[in-house]
Amino acid sequence: MQYPEPIEKLIESYMRLPGIGNKNATRLAFYTVDMDEEDVTKFAKALISAKRDLHYCQICGNITEDEPCEICQDQTRDQHQLIVVEQPKDVMAFEKMNEYHGLYHVLHGVLSPTDGTTPDDLNIASLLKRLQEHEEITEVILATNATTEGEATAMYLSRLIKPAQIKVTRLAHGLAVGSDIEYADEMTLARAMQGRQEM
Amino acid sequence: MQYPEPIEKLIESYMRLPGIGNKNATRLAFYTVDMDEEDVTKFAKALISAKRDLHYCQICGNITEDEPCEICQDQTRDQHQLIVVEQPKDVMAFEKMNEYHGLYHVLHGVLSPTDGTTPDDLNIASLLKRLQEHEEITEVILATNATTEGEATAMYLSRLIKPAQIKVTRLAHGLAVGSDIEYADEMTLARAMQGRQEM
Repeated sequence: MQYPEPIEKLIESYMRLPGIGNKNATRLAFYTVDMDEEDVTKFAKALISAKRDLHYCQICGNITEDEPCEICQDQTRDQHQLIVVEQPKDVMAFEKMNEYHGLYHVLHGVLSPTDGTTPDDLNIASLLKRLQEHEEITEVILATNATTEGEATAMYLSRLIKPAQIKVTRLAHGLAVGSDIEYADEMTLARAMQGRQEM
Repeated sequence: MQYPEPIEKLIESYMRLPGIGNKNATRLAFYTVDMDEEDVTKFAKALISAKRDLHYCQICGNITEDEPCEICQDQTRDQHQLIVVEQPKDVMAFEKMNEYHGLYHVLHGVLSPTDGTTPDDLNIASLLKRLQEHEEITEVILATNATTEGEATAMYLSRLIKPAQIKVTRLAHGLAVGSDIEYADEMTLARAMQGRQEM
């Protein structure tokens, strides 16, 4: 015996989402049946709209409804600095900080020999073209994550960009604000030591 | 700054699901944007269909596309036994066991003073009516969960049904098959002792 077809299909769809297994998908499907019709309709529409109305900006690779995206369109932003990030979510993190008003470039991933991600799979060619054509850019801030792949990608990009006489910087690594030294991992502590500054 | 509206709306919809917080919803929304259009369309349709095409059987309360449900329609099933469960998912668990061929009744919850769930909120009136009208039923098996609320609900139902001269039974509690005594909680072990049988 199986569940009725509509619920089986919904379980299948939920299971396609990352991190949602069979049990969880079943729970979500039954929950959906009990939801308000209005909310379910909204959900279905939001799915369709997110897929149909959004794309990646041709200039920077950030997620956007407009072409180019809001940030690339905005001529009041500082055109001298450019932050390179892995994902659109990282752009949001910087924007929430509310202290940076320059440009962005989204790689959509990192170099990873294990996953088979090569430079051609990332948004790198468009970054180099942009740096060539957009001569105002004087500093590229590499803000890939502090993982092995993130570090390797930053290293790779740094080697590509430096010959063009553009300043390349990397975000500082060290202890998180408010964190305990006691609980810091060795790598973080080592980086915090290396990056120590005179008071 | 916010994400583009379509993604904000999708995050909001994902967050309405149980157990999915802001971070997870954001991750799922971005994942959706990268999914195949076909899969997203299927997902949206499955949501709508699950809400539109499914309802609870008027006789037993199980989830169904048909009225009455497949099990209630099936006259080849044993009409003498009826299992009372909390949720439609429990019906599926018994059906998978493939050893029971009687009827079901789904309460859609348990009595819970803390949540304010009273007998009127559960599918109890229809159960009593069913037992009155359907005189072939000779045994009601109470299969609510082995929780405080599940036990209390079973006790309540037992008191209601017994006067009608119907045999009322409760599922056995004890050690799970394949489990270690060492790791069994005290309640389970106590119940396993009480229910011990001669070999």
